[in-house]
Amino acid sequence: MRLRGAAPVNLIATTDGLARIDGTEAALLDLPFDDVAALLATGDGFAPAHTAAVRRRIPLADLDGKLLAPLAATGAVWGVGLNYHCKARLTGRPVPPDPIVFLKARSAMPAPDADVVLPLDRIGQPDYEGEVAVVVGRRMQDTPADEVWQHIAGITAANDMTARDAMAATGNPTLAKSFAGFGALGASVLDLTAVPDPADIPVETLVNGAVRQSSSTASLIFDVPELLARLTRFVVLQPGDVVLTGTPAGTGQDRDDFLRPGDQVEVRVGGVLPLRTRFVARDGGTPADPGPSDPRS
Amino acid sequence: MRLRGAAPVNLIATTDGLARIDGTEAALLDLPFDDVAALLATGDGFAPAHTAAVRRRIPLADLDGKLLAPLAATGAVWGVGLNYHCKARLTGRPVPPDPIVFLKARSAMPAPDADVVLPLDRIGQPDYEGEVAVVVGRRMQDTPADEVWQHIAGITAANDMTARDAMAATGNPTLAKSFAGFGALGASVLDLTAVPDPADIPVETLVNGAVRQSSSTASLIFDVPELLARLTRFVVLQPGDVVLTGTPAGTGQDRDDFLRPGDQVEVRVGGVLPLRTRFVARDGGTPADPGPSDPRS
Repeated sequence: MRLRGAAPVNLIATTDGLARIDGTEAALLDLPFDDVAALLATGDGFAPAHTAAVRRRIPLADLDGKLLAPLAATGAVWGVGLNYHCKARLTGRPVPPDPIVFLKARSAMPAPDADVVLPLDRIGQPDYEGEVAVVVGRRMQDTPADEVWQHIAGITAANDMTARDAMAATGNPTLAKSFAGFGALGASVLDLTAVPDPADIPVETLVNGAVRQSSSTASLIFDVPELLARLTRFVVLQPGDVVLTGTPAGTGQDRDDFLRPGDQVEVRVGGVLPLRTRFVARDGGTPADPGPSDPRS
Repeated sequence: MRLRGAAPVNLIATTDGLARIDGTEAALLDLPFDDVAALLATGDGFAPAHTAAVRRRIPLADLDGKLLAPLAATGAVWGVGLNYHCKARLTGRPVPPDPIVFLKARSAMPAPDADVVLPLDRIGQPDYEGEVAVVVGRRMQDTPADEVWQHIAGITAANDMTARDAMAATGNPTLAKSFAGFGALGASVLDLTAVPDPADIPVETLVNGAVRQSSSTASLIFDVPELLARLTRFVVLQPGDVVLTGTPAGTGQDRDDFLRPGDQVEVRVGGVLPLRTRFVARDGGTPADPGPSDPRS
């Protein structure tokens, strides 16, 4: 659905509206949408973002505190457990015969660069999971694996945070992964046409600057086409829906070391603007809400 | 948040916009929203629907084929397993110590009065579950049970359809309950102030005109305040989010008798406009999609 000759877009949501990243600048677009999922819901993929007039340009360096969650209006955030061979080996669990899928609450999504409160009165083992996420561009139902990529609009980075102790206590990934701020997506949504090899998208997670996870979707147990083909035998995926593809080895669980107030997590995925989150204590003199208030809601 | 003296509203979504039920008529409202969840997202509850000008009136009898899902824009549809004592007794399963909660995909939601295709190439045991659903009016996080009702805007009816064989095969309620058309909500959303006793909301399910389920939320294992208090210890509920409260005894599972093409299910909840769904075969000469196309998306 990309216009011939148009450069692929890398979109962010800001307090001033949707913007395209152009080099070191954000080009604010004249669009009737303030969210990438809302843009994709029109069914035209990123086309409106290619043709939209530029209202204003801001240096990326001046976006501090202005980034919003680019997919706040998504209809669904699907996740999958144990989907990297390295992670399966580490846990000693057998490779699952079918993807272990779950839905994550949309309300868990903070803004990129947000301060997220660790709910340490409720849980003791908050853990990061850096992941590649794909964003649906066209409705999918019973979609064969070899047609999946045609339905994907773009990719983004995800931090599929999990309270390991809540997971052990409830056995319910939806609950253990949906605390406020536990569903960071972004910072940008990158047009799939800008991804050199969709079967080999790199993902890296840094905690306080140290690389803790480093892999690629080439190492997935169920690759993106297979994962979405299987999922769409059960459910309909709609434009703007998000599917997280699983996390590689290197989470805190693997070292029995969990996040503490003051920790900073950064997830880097392909050409996506890095997704950074700082974790704070509830009474740490920092904002009590998961990120800046969203003026769109 | 209701205006003093204003009559409680009972809202429907139509192809001509949101409307208030006034006796035997639908009063189309002059509002910048076409969905009840979008209306509630403003944080003012039903207030805008009380004060909005009436654009036009249509007899309810003329709404055939014009009803849309009133909560299509919801951010979450939460469900709960085994939450009626009668159902627990029937299954022989012990009363669960904690609510067994799950998220249902929003994409499973058909319009009221829709023809829903039974995916009989995938599953063999499609089953209805008539339920009372509550609709959130104000953000909830760590909300104590005795403050829950203050945060609820209204109620609606739900048919929390489940493929029993998919549930047995996957152990995953989100998958077994999210096939296209399996998440009917509506037909109207009724202001909580119009509910005589929120602790005793009647629910009845008719299949082809025969009453199959008949109970009330007075028989819940975890009542609405307790259910939502426990849920909000984990997750944030936002305005427009929906929580299904569980189904009483009398589903097809209880008689080993599942839905077939041609069956009609009607869920009646308090003063909510009855929620009717007709189930059809994929090749039955009836629409292949779950309900009329939604002009809003």
